[in-house]
Amino acid sequence: MNIKLVLHIIGALWMCLSFFFLLPLGWALYYGEGDAPALIYTIIACAASGFFAWNYTRDKSEIHLRDGFAIVSLGWLTAAFWGALPAYISGDIPSFTDAYFESISGFTTTGASILTDVESMPHGILFLRSLTHWLGGMGIIVLSLAILPMMGIGGMQLFRAEVPGPVADKLTPRITQTAKILWGVYLLLTVCETALLMLGGMNLFEALCHTFGTMATGGFSTRNSSIAAYSGYIQWVIAVFMALAGCNFALHYHALKGKVNSYFKDTEFRFYIGVLAVSSILLIAANPSDLFEGGENKIRHTVFQVVSIMTTTGYGTHDYEMWAPSGHLLLLILMFVGGMAGSTGGGIKTMRVLILIKQARLELRQIIHPRGVFPVRLRSRVIGNDIIFNVFGFFLLYTLLFVAGALFLAFLNIDIVTAIGAAAACLNNIGPGLGLVGPTDNYHHLPQIGKWALAALMLLGRLEVYTVMVIFSRSYWKK
Amino acid sequence: MNIKLVLHIIGALWMCLSFFFLLPLGWALYYGEGDAPALIYTIIACAASGFFAWNYTRDKSEIHLRDGFAIVSLGWLTAAFWGALPAYISGDIPSFTDAYFESISGFTTTGASILTDVESMPHGILFLRSLTHWLGGMGIIVLSLAILPMMGIGGMQLFRAEVPGPVADKLTPRITQTAKILWGVYLLLTVCETALLMLGGMNLFEALCHTFGTMATGGFSTRNSSIAAYSGYIQWVIAVFMALAGCNFALHYHALKGKVNSYFKDTEFRFYIGVLAVSSILLIAANPSDLFEGGENKIRHTVFQVVSIMTTTGYGTHDYEMWAPSGHLLLLILMFVGGMAGSTGGGIKTMRVLILIKQARLELRQIIHPRGVFPVRLRSRVIGNDIIFNVFGFFLLYTLLFVAGALFLAFLNIDIVTAIGAAAACLNNIGPGLGLVGPTDNYHHLPQIGKWALAALMLLGRLEVYTVMVIFSRSYWKK
Repeated sequence: MNIKLVLHIIGALWMCLSFFFLLPLGWALYYGEGDAPALIYTIIACAASGFFAWNYTRDKSEIHLRDGFAIVSLGWLTAAFWGALPAYISGDIPSFTDAYFESISGFTTTGASILTDVESMPHGILFLRSLTHWLGGMGIIVLSLAILPMMGIGGMQLFRAEVPGPVADKLTPRITQTAKILWGVYLLLTVCETALLMLGGMNLFEALCHTFGTMATGGFSTRNSSIAAYSGYIQWVIAVFMALAGCNFALHYHALKGKVNSYFKDTEFRFYIGVLAVSSILLIAANPSDLFEGGENKIRHTVFQVVSIMTTTGYGTHDYEMWAPSGHLLLLILMFVGGMAGSTGGGIKTMRVLILIKQARLELRQIIHPRGVFPVRLRSRVIGNDIIFNVFGFFLLYTLLFVAGALFLAFLNIDIVTAIGAAAACLNNIGPGLGLVGPTDNYHHLPQIGKWALAALMLLGRLEVYTVMVIFSRSYWKK
Repeated sequence: MNIKLVLHIIGALWMCLSFFFLLPLGWALYYGEGDAPALIYTIIACAASGFFAWNYTRDKSEIHLRDGFAIVSLGWLTAAFWGALPAYISGDIPSFTDAYFESISGFTTTGASILTDVESMPHGILFLRSLTHWLGGMGIIVLSLAILPMMGIGGMQLFRAEVPGPVADKLTPRITQTAKILWGVYLLLTVCETALLMLGGMNLFEALCHTFGTMATGGFSTRNSSIAAYSGYIQWVIAVFMALAGCNFALHYHALKGKVNSYFKDTEFRFYIGVLAVSSILLIAANPSDLFEGGENKIRHTVFQVVSIMTTTGYGTHDYEMWAPSGHLLLLILMFVGGMAGSTGGGIKTMRVLILIKQARLELRQIIHPRGVFPVRLRSRVIGNDIIFNVFGFFLLYTLLFVAGALFLAFLNIDIVTAIGAAAACLNNIGPGLGLVGPTDNYHHLPQIGKWALAALMLLGRLEVYTVMVIFSRSYWKK
């Protein structure tokens, strides 16, 4: 690992971050609720550290694979540190653990909160909180469609040819080019949703905060009752944009280029929409009608929760813990399925789930025809064994992390439904889980060590496991 | 599939079965509690059907792979039918669903029961119930060490060279030879445990029933309070024999041949014992002491439950649902780990878990060295890609079945802890689960359709998933 180079890039990242932090400062000054000084201190510290790190570590060498892993992991970890500072300095979140939990929950687009009364927070801090989502989502799109494919992580190699960019094999120019295109799409969708939410009666502040939470599949709201506080129109708008945010952004790019049918030509997209539709229909059938006020109400709340959980957003309009047991378990399963690869959604990702299901079915054929060769196909391309192994490895590590995380919480004397729910909700970057961390509760009451463990799960899940775990492997540090 | 050949062998199996059913008839006549007629009718019907099926379908052709799958699956399904008849005819279990559930739970060595008062059952029926365990266990040892390796199922190919037999590649003589050796070991251990239990004060009836339940890692008891009804000595004896029954029987064979150190030379055995030891220590530390009467009591009950669950036996001496949450979750995880491959234990099997963990770790290395080749090794042999794929496929199908089973139960309005616990306990062939099917409850109260679903899970888990699922695949029926 080239520490100088890593610091150089992380320094640049911090400077960018401090620039974005001017936005919440603007809101803090506008509302004048006393959170401006904390934001100013943070911006100065972040910009200055960034400048020093960047300026004194200039290095002309190429970025290597190993540096990439360190840059990505450290980037997220340190961004969460800067994001935690304002609320901690201003005293709005008195515990540093809590402030860091909230911030990394934002940057990993999880949306798990330790705040018991969101509405009492000053507007600058609240805006910063939602902004961490949006920045995290921005990072994730580029990571999953431009950086991970180069790193060869868990099947993301399949996307190598997905988004246009310079054909040269050099890492940096290609990433820059791809990033610009994808951020354009992300920004466009952000503007559209904000406008639609304002049409539904939200003010600019609320509309921006909820758009940030939607586009990043994050889930932080500015209201204690989340999206239940808003009209049916707004709930439908957010549901649609959550579903869009859970799509591969390369598909949106192609659609904007005029190839609208590229959505339905895509196997993964059909699977993604299929799972959303079947789950919604099953739960509309299974949910007792007396929990809802009429048909549209039942359909809206059920579809909203299914989309919100499967895209790993975590916004709520209804307390799904009051639903039938089928609802609890199906939503728990959808947490793991997650959004499409190349979206801002978390979870295992529909592409990997699809590859795993196809491979499992082929194994049955293999047993009957021991000498046959049956390759997995996706998008009419044959998937190589290296990618299958990669996806399998991902699935195994993911499962191990989930089990270890839930077990760790259980050893802190947390009941198993809560332990399973919290580990699943954090690893898959959803936010609300089950039991004592369900949609009407929050993470405030968990023991400190449990919060750090969950923060680690959020980061591992968000960075596709490998990116972080590789750094802890012996091979990484060996020459 | 050669239906004549399949019927021929199934017929022979039924005749064997009817012969074994003379044993419970003996007990029924000895105790004279009115269950003898039902047993006699069953024996006659079973023997007669067996004779007709065997006699009128003579076929000199070789057994092919496809016939093997049908023989194994139909063998278990129909054996469970004959095992269900006596209690149903005598009226001791008035519902056929319940009688079949109890019988397949016996033959699959699961031990999940619908009986609310075991002690009120007549002795013949009770003995038959425990005998189904013993016969099922006998079938499983031969299946896993002689038949499955030939079928190429989920890594069992690794055992192809494990147990001596004629070197010829012909299926039947090799299986016969291997079976004889393994049944010798099984019988020897059965005699030893029965003797040790009788030394502890059990009468012959109880000693045999509990030995059957132990050696098959089944778990049916003749007492309502399971093994809690007996002394500390008996609990330790059963714990040790459960651990032995969870071992690869080929290792016992080698040990009896004088190579005692073959146990610790075996990677899988060290892993198996390691997981048992670490889990026991963790739970002894985590369990609140006031639930137990002193140190020995705490150690005994904790070790007993850990061994009982991980070997997938399911005997109980203590209500683990009163333990700390860590106990619930750790036991749930151990349910999936299961015993060693080639034992009577169920679950995923330690061999597969070991291969999966090794492969997941290697994938991390692969990412850092994209061009490196890192094979998985076990017992200093390199494991080929075909076996790794086979094990992965097994793990995926197993996971899918568990999730589908739990979801199905949840759609029957069963709470998620019970649904997850029941699906895990039946798929892994344990018996007691969590929630309303915990160690102090039983499966009686579940809806009928749920019982059939669980019966299917027991069979799928017991026959290593592939064996049954292959029959439902299109390729199986295509020429």
